[in-house]
Amino acid sequence: MNNLYFDTIIAPATIPGTGAISVIRISGPDSLKLVDEVVSIKSGTASQSDGYTIKFGTVYTPDGSFLDEVLVSIFKAPHSYTGEDSAELSCHASSYIVTEIVDLFLTAGARYAEPGEFTKRAFMNGKMDLAQAEAVADIISSTTSTAHRVAANQLRGGFSKELGAIRSELLEMTSLLELELDFSEEDVEFAGREKLAGLISDAIHRLDILADSFHKGNAIRNGIPVAIAGAANAGKSTLLNALLKEDRAIVSDVAGTTRDTIEEVVNIGGLPFRFIDTAGLRRTEESVEKLGIERSFKKISEAEIVLFVVDLTLSEFDLLNSIRDFLPLVNLPSQHLILVLNKTDLLSNLDYNKKVNSINNYVINIDNKIDTIIISAKNEIGIEKLKERLFSLEKELIPTEDSSFVTNQRHYSALRDASGFLSAAARSLSSEAPTDLVAEDLRMALDSLGSITGEVTSEDILNHIFSKHCIGK
Amino acid sequence: MNNLYFDTIIAPATIPGTGAISVIRISGPDSLKLVDEVVSIKSGTASQSDGYTIKFGTVYTPDGSFLDEVLVSIFKAPHSYTGEDSAELSCHASSYIVTEIVDLFLTAGARYAEPGEFTKRAFMNGKMDLAQAEAVADIISSTTSTAHRVAANQLRGGFSKELGAIRSELLEMTSLLELELDFSEEDVEFAGREKLAGLISDAIHRLDILADSFHKGNAIRNGIPVAIAGAANAGKSTLLNALLKEDRAIVSDVAGTTRDTIEEVVNIGGLPFRFIDTAGLRRTEESVEKLGIERSFKKISEAEIVLFVVDLTLSEFDLLNSIRDFLPLVNLPSQHLILVLNKTDLLSNLDYNKKVNSINNYVINIDNKIDTIIISAKNEIGIEKLKERLFSLEKELIPTEDSSFVTNQRHYSALRDASGFLSAAARSLSSEAPTDLVAEDLRMALDSLGSITGEVTSEDILNHIFSKHCIGK
Repeated sequence: MNNLYFDTIIAPATIPGTGAISVIRISGPDSLKLVDEVVSIKSGTASQSDGYTIKFGTVYTPDGSFLDEVLVSIFKAPHSYTGEDSAELSCHASSYIVTEIVDLFLTAGARYAEPGEFTKRAFMNGKMDLAQAEAVADIISSTTSTAHRVAANQLRGGFSKELGAIRSELLEMTSLLELELDFSEEDVEFAGREKLAGLISDAIHRLDILADSFHKGNAIRNGIPVAIAGAANAGKSTLLNALLKEDRAIVSDVAGTTRDTIEEVVNIGGLPFRFIDTAGLRRTEESVEKLGIERSFKKISEAEIVLFVVDLTLSEFDLLNSIRDFLPLVNLPSQHLILVLNKTDLLSNLDYNKKVNSINNYVINIDNKIDTIIISAKNEIGIEKLKERLFSLEKELIPTEDSSFVTNQRHYSALRDASGFLSAAARSLSSEAPTDLVAEDLRMALDSLGSITGEVTSEDILNHIFSKHCIGK
Repeated sequence: MNNLYFDTIIAPATIPGTGAISVIRISGPDSLKLVDEVVSIKSGTASQSDGYTIKFGTVYTPDGSFLDEVLVSIFKAPHSYTGEDSAELSCHASSYIVTEIVDLFLTAGARYAEPGEFTKRAFMNGKMDLAQAEAVADIISSTTSTAHRVAANQLRGGFSKELGAIRSELLEMTSLLELELDFSEEDVEFAGREKLAGLISDAIHRLDILADSFHKGNAIRNGIPVAIAGAANAGKSTLLNALLKEDRAIVSDVAGTTRDTIEEVVNIGGLPFRFIDTAGLRRTEESVEKLGIERSFKKISEAEIVLFVVDLTLSEFDLLNSIRDFLPLVNLPSQHLILVLNKTDLLSNLDYNKKVNSINNYVINIDNKIDTIIISAKNEIGIEKLKERLFSLEKELIPTEDSSFVTNQRHYSALRDASGFLSAAARSLSSEAPTDLVAEDLRMALDSLGSITGEVTSEDILNHIFSKHCIGK
């Protein structure tokens, strides 16, 4: 055992009270010794057991009364999640029992784990790199197959491997440059300048692709933002409910998203769409800028897709006016706009055809990226079609098995930094600047890349990363 | 392997999404074969592994993409919870991953477990008796040390053992009586009538003690019911909040209690007190029967302790009147009544002394089991003293280590039945009725007792019992 930590930590790894069993995690050099102190193992001791074995035992309170029967899974360093000696106690899922057992370990000398501390130890003990450790939290919060695939790729080191390839090429070049500096009096050139320029340009290109994936990767993780806009009585909430209806079971809150508006994530074909119900836009006599509520404007501007719900029972004049007033709020063509013509159930055929035709005629002259769809949110007509439309707009998003998506703000910044330093190096190269300037830029780029996987990092950054994990993770 | 079931069941044993890991349980003859189909075990196979060992593996979706890495705990019949071959998969706590893994097992041929089915199998395969199986649900829902001790005693078979002792004595006697019936023509007497009468009377006494513990046992499990009664503005809710205040962390809902009134369980010195905030009593000109709301009456009558909150700022006349009107609602001395004199913060010393004295003088003449306590719910004065008072009233409840408490309605009924049949047998004996009548009553008593631990039981009863468990238990 050659680990970095001298203390032993404990925390529940499951939430007690709602299942059949609860699991308590213990990790650190004294784990098995403490298990032997707290648990009466039926045969033998935890300390003398092999790793990857299970022992049956009983836990008693200090006054000798029975607490629970437990199963103890034993792991020996380095073959454990953390790389340390560790144990997992499986007991009945009672918060009373879990609290008492944890207390017994604390009394025996363990320390209550900090958020993410098990994963932090796994990183510090070399069991995973930093990007992989960060993916642990992502994989747990994944609710769709796509988000899971992105997180799983990162957890398995796909992203780290891609970075590693770029990094090792740059590292080789930088070493050669630094070798030149050592022999600077002799004016030798170990690193071919042309090859170096090509390599840097290639690396910039690959880093930019990764960095550009952040917007999409973030959408995959948190849900592709779809703003539902429209007048107060246009049927926005009814539409949101209709979209949620059959999907209730797999709809979930996204941790960390702001809740100042109603947001619901719906899984459509494995892609998460985050629907944002904006406040109703009020029609005033004044200019477009005064139309509605500031916050709705902001939500609309941040969305990738905007659904503008209009009430088909309005007069043709009002319909066209409201669409005309709304259009400046959407940033075409970088945003998608779908005009959702609602309340078709309340219209006669004649009325309906006339209005839809004039809307289509109006819209077609403006931008061919505007889409229209006719629904009855109340009767759930056209909802499936709308979902298909949304899915088809975003299907290019679906990552293939091996592609890496950046989903983490920290990684994105580091990639941007690295790309910036490489551009500086490229400029220095082309202007035939001194070798040490080029080498310095390359070194900075390498450090930026290294900070993603944790080759180069500070305690502050580590604490920040792991404090976002849960206790027990 | 000689088990009763031919199919293999699966269910999550923990709630995913909120912890670090989730555990999925699989049990049945094909458990390990299915594990080998679904999980790519790193070295060897689950089927060929020893019990009480752990294997590391990877789960892939049918299209070959990575799902998660898992730890598989392997148990071989009969050394498992259910007594069958079984496995526990530990994966990341993602509902997406758990659902996908369970689906893979269902596709491979497992069946989704019914509520309580793992514990039912443990019972059917002889791993625990019925009373122990029922205690599994109790131990998980225990939130205080006392409730836990009662459930743990039952889980460990303390109650079953006590019943078993009574039952085996009765069984012996019954066998002798039935032997007599076989030799009835010869008019022999294998079972001494006097000894039998003594044994029956002793058994009745012991069963009645157990049955009598039901009221207390139930209070321990669900919380000792304390009704908070009083006029609408007397400060009942403020009192409830003050009682809950420092205790929020360990306060919990009690599963299965009715929620038609506000009920909160507070842990006081290890005893659960269930405070029931009744609707405010209205003061009318009519008789006591019309005083208030029917439901409040019912809640008051069901409570073990009644707190009658009065507003000390009322006139002395109104105070004494409201107490006089309330007294008939309490069933003294089987219920405890505490007069809670509230709003002391709003009174001058003089006023205060005068009112408290006259209340005490009034009450002392009625029943010395009425207690008074002076508080300010708003300023949280006197709350600790009230808690101490409640605890001291109930401290005789705390069961000693080995005592059995009946906490289950089914057990209570069976005990009452058995006691009734034994009384009938005793009457038959003393009236020198034919031996077969006595034997029949004894047999019925034995069946009643046997139904508690499951020696004698029907599929209907089993299904009813286990359907109240959670899935995965």
